[in-house]
Amino acid sequence: MSDKPFALSIKVVIRDEADRCLLLRRSASSKGNPGKWEFPGGKVEAGEDFDAALLREVAEETGLTVSLHRVAGAAESEMPTRKVAYLILEGRLESGQVRLSSEHEDYAWVAPHDLLGMDLVEQFRPFAQAYGQQPGQP
Amino acid sequence: MSDKPFALSIKVVIRDEADRCLLLRRSASSKGNPGKWEFPGGKVEAGEDFDAALLREVAEETGLTVSLHRVAGAAESEMPTRKVAYLILEGRLESGQVRLSSEHEDYAWVAPHDLLGMDLVEQFRPFAQAYGQQPGQP
Repeated sequence: MSDKPFALSIKVVIRDEADRCLLLRRSASSKGNPGKWEFPGGKVEAGEDFDAALLREVAEETGLTVSLHRVAGAAESEMPTRKVAYLILEGRLESGQVRLSSEHEDYAWVAPHDLLGMDLVEQFRPFAQAYGQQPGQP
Repeated sequence: MSDKPFALSIKVVIRDEADRCLLLRRSASSKGNPGKWEFPGGKVEAGEDFDAALLREVAEETGLTVSLHRVAGAAESEMPTRKVAYLILEGRLESGQVRLSSEHEDYAWVAPHDLLGMDLVEQFRPFAQAYGQQPGQP
């Protein structure tokens, strides 16, 4: 058995036509990481296909329609009572204009090599560093 | 929407007391990748917690009890009608002796830097390369 149970969260790096990546800024009133930047996505609910869950989260958080293309990486965070494992996909903006939910207060389209210059949620920094060094994708 | 739907598979690198990694060799009669080496784990079934699913798969495939410690990486494969996204955790052998199911015909405990010397299922080679270069874990 693990010391703490793992929860699973699926995130996506959405690339636009200029190959920039969408970041969302967490609300100042967020319980965790207020004001920090993160990728769209979230927890998979019981019985839900993980790709459908991700597309639902993206629609709720951004109002965008995206296509999912490849696996981009993984990340991890530790909370008081559990750990969270993140699987991070890469997708492409298909249609829509960004329309935020109450969970976020701003958004930005950022070049891959500029991701680390943003005040990211801590657990995504190692991923952002590796991702920014990859050759042009997708 | 994606061209192909993604399925999710969870794998684990089980480390023993000598910090070697458990590999399983797929049966010669397997439909996919017969005779190739892979990590234990498998698909998460609908409604199942992903960490419980992984521990169940590990018990079925190896007879071992393991603890899950951290996220080790991700991988991807493409099949005719879908893609598979792999989240790869790292765990530790807690108890048990390896007892294979009919799905596998052999097992091996391999040092992290020797993983690439095995005839791995193709989609795990990039992960094995990166993992073998990491500093000592866990």
